[in-house]
Amino acid sequence: MQFNHFDNGGNAVMVNVSDKDATKRTAVAKGFISMKAATLELLESGQVGKGDVLGVARVAGIMAAKRTSELIPMCHTLYLESCSIDFKVHREHSEVEAVCTVVTSGKTGVEMEAVVGVNVALMTIYDMCKSADRAMTMHGIYLAEKHGGKSGSYVAEGRRYEG
Amino acid sequence: MQFNHFDNGGNAVMVNVSDKDATKRTAVAKGFISMKAATLELLESGQVGKGDVLGVARVAGIMAAKRTSELIPMCHTLYLESCSIDFKVHREHSEVEAVCTVVTSGKTGVEMEAVVGVNVALMTIYDMCKSADRAMTMHGIYLAEKHGGKSGSYVAEGRRYEG
Amino acid sequence: MQFNHFDNGGNAVMVNVSDKDATKRTAVAKGFISMKAATLELLESGQVGKGDVLGVARVAGIMAAKRTSELIPMCHTLYLESCSIDFKVHREHSEVEAVCTVVTSGKTGVEMEAVVGVNVALMTIYDMCKSADRAMTMHGIYLAEKHGGKSGSYVAEGRRYEG
Amino acid sequence: MQFNHFDNGGNAVMVNVSDKDATKRTAVAKGFISMKAATLELLESGQVGKGDVLGVARVAGIMAAKRTSELIPMCHTLYLESCSIDFKVHREHSEVEAVCTVVTSGKTGVEMEAVVGVNVALMTIYDMCKSADRAMTMHGIYLAEKHGGKSGSYVAEGRRYEG
Amino acid sequence: MQFNHFDNGGNAVMVNVSDKDATKRTAVAKGFISMKAATLELLESGQVGKGDVLGVARVAGIMAAKRTSELIPMCHTLYLESCSIDFKVHREHSEVEAVCTVVTSGKTGVEMEAVVGVNVALMTIYDMCKSADRAMTMHGIYLAEKHGGKSGSYVAEGRRYEG
Amino acid sequence: MQFNHFDNGGNAVMVNVSDKDATKRTAVAKGFISMKAATLELLESGQVGKGDVLGVARVAGIMAAKRTSELIPMCHTLYLESCSIDFKVHREHSEVEAVCTVVTSGKTGVEMEAVVGVNVALMTIYDMCKSADRAMTMHGIYLAEKHGGKSGSYVAEGRRYEG
Repeated sequence: MQFNHFDNGGNAVMVNVSDKDATKRTAVAKGFISMKAATLELLESGQVGKGDVLGVARVAGIMAAKRTSELIPMCHTLYLESCSIDFKVHREHSEVEAVCTVVTSGKTGVEMEAVVGVNVALMTIYDMCKSADRAMTMHGIYLAEKHGGKSGSYVAEGRRYEG
Repeated sequence: MQFNHFDNGGNAVMVNVSDKDATKRTAVAKGFISMKAATLELLESGQVGKGDVLGVARVAGIMAAKRTSELIPMCHTLYLESCSIDFKVHREHSEVEAVCTVVTSGKTGVEMEAVVGVNVALMTIYDMCKSADRAMTMHGIYLAEKHGGKSGSYVAEGRRYEG
Repeated sequence: MQFNHFDNGGNAVMVNVSDKDATKRTAVAKGFISMKAATLELLESGQVGKGDVLGVARVAGIMAAKRTSELIPMCHTLYLESCSIDFKVHREHSEVEAVCTVVTSGKTGVEMEAVVGVNVALMTIYDMCKSADRAMTMHGIYLAEKHGGKSGSYVAEGRRYEG
Repeated sequence: MQFNHFDNGGNAVMVNVSDKDATKRTAVAKGFISMKAATLELLESGQVGKGDVLGVARVAGIMAAKRTSELIPMCHTLYLESCSIDFKVHREHSEVEAVCTVVTSGKTGVEMEAVVGVNVALMTIYDMCKSADRAMTMHGIYLAEKHGGKSGSYVAEGRRYEG
Repeated sequence: MQFNHFDNGGNAVMVNVSDKDATKRTAVAKGFISMKAATLELLESGQVGKGDVLGVARVAGIMAAKRTSELIPMCHTLYLESCSIDFKVHREHSEVEAVCTVVTSGKTGVEMEAVVGVNVALMTIYDMCKSADRAMTMHGIYLAEKHGGKSGSYVAEGRRYEG
Repeated sequence: MQFNHFDNGGNAVMVNVSDKDATKRTAVAKGFISMKAATLELLESGQVGKGDVLGVARVAGIMAAKRTSELIPMCHTLYLESCSIDFKVHREHSEVEAVCTVVTSGKTGVEMEAVVGVNVALMTIYDMCKSADRAMTMHGIYLAEKHGGKSGSYVAEGRRYEG
């Protein structure tokens, strides 16, 4: 067995997808950032009027998802047909969850685009709040589901907050 | 109290650092990606000759750290004087740890640059290995330490694998 | 009524175009920069041999149009099939007009690409001439026409210099 | 007389600033986008809770200002020490005004950074609202003031809404 | 006769390809960097374990090929379906050869993408080795072959190391 | 001996320059593109009025030099204080020579910026002329001289067309 991002000589390579079919593909990635209760409160208060941390993070995540192929060396350039980022505040765990959903019609999937969208959204939250709380931690970042393409559907199992 | 990335009207703003001193600043960020034992084995076997996942991830992380201000909306553009990424394989936890160290001489710190370097390195590992293991998870991404600047040194406490 | 770049919760979102048809779409945007008569004269003299302000501005506008999705947060990435920028010197109003025409075959239009092309061309003229004339003003920047897509053709009416 | 962005042979050139002093420099640019009264109302209603057009436009403008040297061919790369964008709604003229203020300590000014910030903010407003109003027009985009550097201060005179 | 990247007025223009067919297109570019024998030896020793110059150069070349349209003003943006870079060490000439192969399904060819991939790979070798050998020279960079599109196949003739 | 872009473990690293002095540094790189006599004639005729290949190539080279750190993985981000590109037509060899001169005041040199400027200028000439002549070849690309920094001045010897 071998990773498909290397050729037989072990050299990194952008996988050849030229003979694949262009079909509709969707991916959803999720991730979390935990923080002090006081930081979360501050973040939430900003939502209702000013200091919109999550609004800035959403824009950053969407813009980064579009540039995934510039960040991840072997990723194909792709035309994204839809990209959205949703946030859920989990007060009981003192954390924010980011969910990024990406859709394309193409020859490769958009798993990495969704992962990049979540990650950059979380890092932007970190940046916007770090003057109040340097100890925030990002965690639980994973591919929640993907649909379409030759390998069909995949749904991650047994994750926190799932189902 | 208020986040310093918003003005009094609640508008996002790039913090004015024009009156701060340009001094030497260092930041170290860390993060982890856990995977199946078989995936880790495959990744490690690549290190000794071909299929160098970590080599590609290191380049990706360093290149992304230099472009932090393009990804994180309110980050200042900065001249990085040093950037390195080290990986440690923790076989007992079936995971890889990435450590990014960044140095600058400037008016703001390089915390976000270190965080971006770690995150993009981890996402590149995910991308390079995802054909073998879609369930990999990134976790424990945080600022480990920073030095210099008006607020001086900060060292995260009580983290796994520290000390 | 609601802007379509927000979901029902008011969150900014890249509009989902995955179910739209890929068709030929064209957009034309226009804009003006007014300057002192002496500046315009200097600019025009450069056209015939050296100091080609408009040549540099044309290149800048075309290059920026290709990167529209990096600048405008909710814009889709697009493959441009044609992009050109024409300039007209209106000596009687002491101004330069820029016209950017963009063509694509895709699921969304190229209105923003045309607007970005015009705007960056005008800003480049400003930059190249500002040592002679800081008071230049950009104005009358608008979508002149667009064709194709579900909403069909649109032609702006009653604008200056329009037939 | 000659534009300083060309050498004696008429070739475009990035002006040599290596012998200039690094000093504090500020620039303020302004610009407007006019729209239908109904569009402005929709935009304003979004400010108080959801559909924050100006919030997205502010982020876009600040991010673009940082990348000015990538857009404007002969602009120097610069480290921005502060960048902010303010909006004023002029209901009587049915338009939105954008004001971008940029600060640096360097060998060249930040006039273009301020102009780019205003322009991209206005274009983002156009993009976010164009589903409701294709006829919006950007106008009155100019350098309002700049301070610092060898040429000292400049304040534009006789503009609308000034003073 | 006239170059097709200019209109009848002599203005640079992105060629209109909207009426062309989207077909499979391939391009191969080659190039060389010559260096001192001692430098080549150092480079080769790095291949077997550490200091992997060619691994870094391969990543750089592939990443740059994806961004060709940002570098070459009149190039179309393109979706690359495959990109790989191979290196051959020619000890007898004390040089390294880079070969970049790119595949797309589109309305224009990928000649420039292949040329950019080779060039940036060679420049990265230069950068990684320049502390040991400033006199390295890049040479023999050309389009080796291209297939597909209206003009069909082209294979360069009589080049060194060919056939 | 070892390349300085790798640490003791053989990992690629951005060299730490934080303890170096910021001084004035200059670099000059040169390179050539040879073509058919008819192509060169076409290119030269464009210079006097329309179809300004070299004007476009100059803009492309300068813009790329500013983005060197995005292309070359281990290059430091740098503030360029001056960048110019000159072309010389060598009719007797049926080729165009590009010369890129870059100046900075910083802790590292601008050798790579000069090399990137030359290379992208040459590739742009290739792109603009390739409809007439696919067999053009780039060659003789090297660092002609550099000044400043700890290692002082370097001037390449025995090159063609050098004094």
